[in-house]
Amino acid sequence: MLKLFHAWGSCSLASAIALEEAGAAYELVVMDTRAGDQRKPEYLAVNPKGRVPALVTEHGILTETPAILAFVAQRFPAANLAPRDDPYAFAQAQAFNSYLCSTVHVAHAHKHRGYRWTDDAAAQAAMTAAVPKNEIACFQLIEDEMLAGPFVLGEAFSICDAYLFTLTGWLEGDGVDRRQFPKVSALYDRVGARPAVRKVLAQEAV
Amino acid sequence: MLKLFHAWGSCSLASAIALEEAGAAYELVVMDTRAGDQRKPEYLAVNPKGRVPALVTEHGILTETPAILAFVAQRFPAANLAPRDDPYAFAQAQAFNSYLCSTVHVAHAHKHRGYRWTDDAAAQAAMTAAVPKNEIACFQLIEDEMLAGPFVLGEAFSICDAYLFTLTGWLEGDGVDRRQFPKVSALYDRVGARPAVRKVLAQEAV
Repeated sequence: MLKLFHAWGSCSLASAIALEEAGAAYELVVMDTRAGDQRKPEYLAVNPKGRVPALVTEHGILTETPAILAFVAQRFPAANLAPRDDPYAFAQAQAFNSYLCSTVHVAHAHKHRGYRWTDDAAAQAAMTAAVPKNEIACFQLIEDEMLAGPFVLGEAFSICDAYLFTLTGWLEGDGVDRRQFPKVSALYDRVGARPAVRKVLAQEAV
Repeated sequence: MLKLFHAWGSCSLASAIALEEAGAAYELVVMDTRAGDQRKPEYLAVNPKGRVPALVTEHGILTETPAILAFVAQRFPAANLAPRDDPYAFAQAQAFNSYLCSTVHVAHAHKHRGYRWTDDAAAQAAMTAAVPKNEIACFQLIEDEMLAGPFVLGEAFSICDAYLFTLTGWLEGDGVDRRQFPKVSALYDRVGARPAVRKVLAQEAV
């Protein structure tokens, strides 16, 4: 059975949603990243990067959200979670997810994880202060340029929606009102109402 | 014909190498990012992100290095630039490229592009100063954990090698000696000696 190392509040939610939407048999291993679970030796043996997500498969361990999402889409083709047979359409999905991981997630990470880029406390505070402005720029670009509608890639829910839903969910805590982005906001509500997404999120309350 | 918007010294080199290795018919449109070509209206109409690379295909425009690389690998299957038929192996390639775009490239970008994350000049200087240390941490992880050898994924050259070669080439300018990473360094030399790579690089001198 697939095993996903996951932390609530982290980007690994996207992988959990994809697995649930795929109808996969999987186990969620919940990590407490505030307590530093991700830096313990037993987890570093799973993922030397010391981050979530990590997906244990029968072939080996996968990391990095865009890779895990693509794997789930290809491994469970019946769920139709990505356009798999058209290299251009598949690459468009990958481009969207690449933007989320390399730009949007990174913009958010400067709030509490500035230590990744400098030890200077004043510099970290300056980075934290700029996070809402930078996130607004990212989401404005998504709103204006990247959504085919009603879902990211068009008519069908895909791995891109699972990922965008996850990162959109961070805005409120970062002091950004998602309602200033009507298309993103509607998509967030649409994805949040899906049974698979509700089933994943219900586990956080347990 | 495919058309790649490219800037020397940027990550778009990886896409140029992949196209050349694939034997694709393509045109290189060289941008001067120091002169701000990427923020001119005519380029923003191509790529609203205002960054390179952008690949113009017969279907539309692709951005983001990992997506372009995956597209080239899938579009030119005879070149065998990625394991396309095995979802796990393909995801491993995507995971490697995701790490490069979201962590390694981002570590480097804090040298001159700190304005992406704060307007504070002192904070930008602090970020610049920390770049060598952060790049060393990234490349040590690559050296220790991520290289199957002799190429990134094993016996065959792949899109991952084109990308790693590109980012390794930035180390010297950032004050990091790549020879402290013997496997990475050997791979860099091995890739740099390939005819397709030499052909791409020769165009810079023109």
